[in-house]
Amino acid sequence: MSSIRILVTGGTFDKEYDELSGNLFFQDSHVPEMLRLGRSGLNVELRTLMMVDSLDMSDADRQNILEHCRSCPRARILITHGTDRMEVTARLLGQSIRDKTIVLTGAMVPYKFGSSDGLFNLGAALAFVQVLPPGVYVAMNGRALPWDKVRKNKKTGVFEEIEP
Amino acid sequence: MSSIRILVTGGTFDKEYDELSGNLFFQDSHVPEMLRLGRSGLNVELRTLMMVDSLDMSDADRQNILEHCRSCPRARILITHGTDRMEVTARLLGQSIRDKTIVLTGAMVPYKFGSSDGLFNLGAALAFVQVLPPGVYVAMNGRALPWDKVRKNKKTGVFEEIEP
Amino acid sequence: MSSIRILVTGGTFDKEYDELSGNLFFQDSHVPEMLRLGRSGLNVELRTLMMVDSLDMSDADRQNILEHCRSCPRARILITHGTDRMEVTARLLGQSIRDKTIVLTGAMVPYKFGSSDGLFNLGAALAFVQVLPPGVYVAMNGRALPWDKVRKNKKTGVFEEIEP
Amino acid sequence: MSSIRILVTGGTFDKEYDELSGNLFFQDSHVPEMLRLGRSGLNVELRTLMMVDSLDMSDADRQNILEHCRSCPRARILITHGTDRMEVTARLLGQSIRDKTIVLTGAMVPYKFGSSDGLFNLGAALAFVQVLPPGVYVAMNGRALPWDKVRKNKKTGVFEEIEP
Repeated sequence: MSSIRILVTGGTFDKEYDELSGNLFFQDSHVPEMLRLGRSGLNVELRTLMMVDSLDMSDADRQNILEHCRSCPRARILITHGTDRMEVTARLLGQSIRDKTIVLTGAMVPYKFGSSDGLFNLGAALAFVQVLPPGVYVAMNGRALPWDKVRKNKKTGVFEEIEP
Repeated sequence: MSSIRILVTGGTFDKEYDELSGNLFFQDSHVPEMLRLGRSGLNVELRTLMMVDSLDMSDADRQNILEHCRSCPRARILITHGTDRMEVTARLLGQSIRDKTIVLTGAMVPYKFGSSDGLFNLGAALAFVQVLPPGVYVAMNGRALPWDKVRKNKKTGVFEEIEP
Repeated sequence: MSSIRILVTGGTFDKEYDELSGNLFFQDSHVPEMLRLGRSGLNVELRTLMMVDSLDMSDADRQNILEHCRSCPRARILITHGTDRMEVTARLLGQSIRDKTIVLTGAMVPYKFGSSDGLFNLGAALAFVQVLPPGVYVAMNGRALPWDKVRKNKKTGVFEEIEP
Repeated sequence: MSSIRILVTGGTFDKEYDELSGNLFFQDSHVPEMLRLGRSGLNVELRTLMMVDSLDMSDADRQNILEHCRSCPRARILITHGTDRMEVTARLLGQSIRDKTIVLTGAMVPYKFGSSDGLFNLGAALAFVQVLPPGVYVAMNGRALPWDKVRKNKKTGVFEEIEP
């Protein structure tokens, strides 16, 4: 069983509630806890690149993600990412990397909220990254859509398939 | 997007706590609620065949599942199932059906418990059933193992790959 | 068993996560759901006066709460309230009303977050309001402190007893 | 602020799900975690006397609880207890101890289940034990009922007031 690289970049997935200020903020990633909860038996190497809302992600941040994907010796990479700009990062990666299977996922609701979709999405993304052929995909709403055919519908929050 | 048939058979996934008797029991399936929580955008048809602990599953029950898989017009079938005898049902299906992708999944802890692996497993199983080639698989612990190479380790609760 | 009036004013208690904007917001109160979860057998009459963060509460809002407490025919009143200005409203009520038992409570973390203190606080506040003699109290951290002896420590988030 | 003695005896409160056997069992008490979640600022001393379902509680067990209440130097004692025989233990204590405030509480659903009433009950019981005059009470469903006037309705699960 070959290993999977997980790159954490933040996003709603990992937002916490600051009980003193009443704001949402980032602390440590919840991905390790989620893998334990899912009783994951996968061989994963987790690396936290940044902890940001994707609306706050700069071009330099995206370049950083691209460099990590390029230099990563693993052929299968999962990226946790804010949903608002997930398609932007997917596009950058998709135009540059063709020999690896890269799956981006995230959550509409923070994992720490009872009603989060995070665990469902992480399970799906880990499955997709193991089985899909090389390419860059967004795994949300139970589906994996190729980087050049995906758009988040801002009104419904659903990731839709579009014409490339 | 072709549709996925989901066959519900019960298992830990769907166990509830009876607050009057203090026992665990089955009521309705939680799979629809879990799909909503996961913001699933998949086209699924759900059918509840039975609501039993897999330790209580009879040969007739398994035959029933087999018949439903055979007669189902869909090429992709997901079965929620108790983990203790998941490999038994997988074997029966695997020896008989070769033209459909069938994925069995379940949970170690009831969905209604805070610490359940159910949502993670359902997400992974839905991803696997869309992408894997025809065959029968058990999707647990983040992996999909072929029906003739899987065994639940009773001591650890982990599904392991074995020699066929 | 005499009835208890519950006045809902919002606060962290009732904050929800808007999955499209990523902001916290108010919708309906969770108090009815919390009473069901607590299997409350109490005779309560719930009235929602406003749904605001207490930092956004105006003097007119506080006057509104005071009027409702004054005109309420019940001798026992529970108020759910944001924690940041809970002591301000308590002071206004405490200086004006002496013939009723009024208990203010709230939460440091939204009820919908897994780690909320809301259910604990609501249980405690309902107990205090039934048993304490007339007066105005803040029920947080498992204690009930009189309106003229309570202050929220902004650094720790704990409600402390102070000299009046 | 005087301290409260908490005596843990088990009950549904503390039941866990054994993911290997599928049974409910007892491990450590969740009361400390629940006090943290409730941001309790109370001075409590917790002692675990036993970890049993109250249906399995023997006369010797109940005698043990009685002795601990008698010898306890604290005037305020909270007992976590299974709900099925809570009234039996309450009766034994009520007939013997008149100079202390003793409150029994428990849960209909294990704390670890998402839908537990445990946190609500613990909050209420801690409030009641601080404020009620000496006597023995059962605190469930948001109320505190005296030991000689309480009965669990086996059909509804609700603790009712009865004629002594």
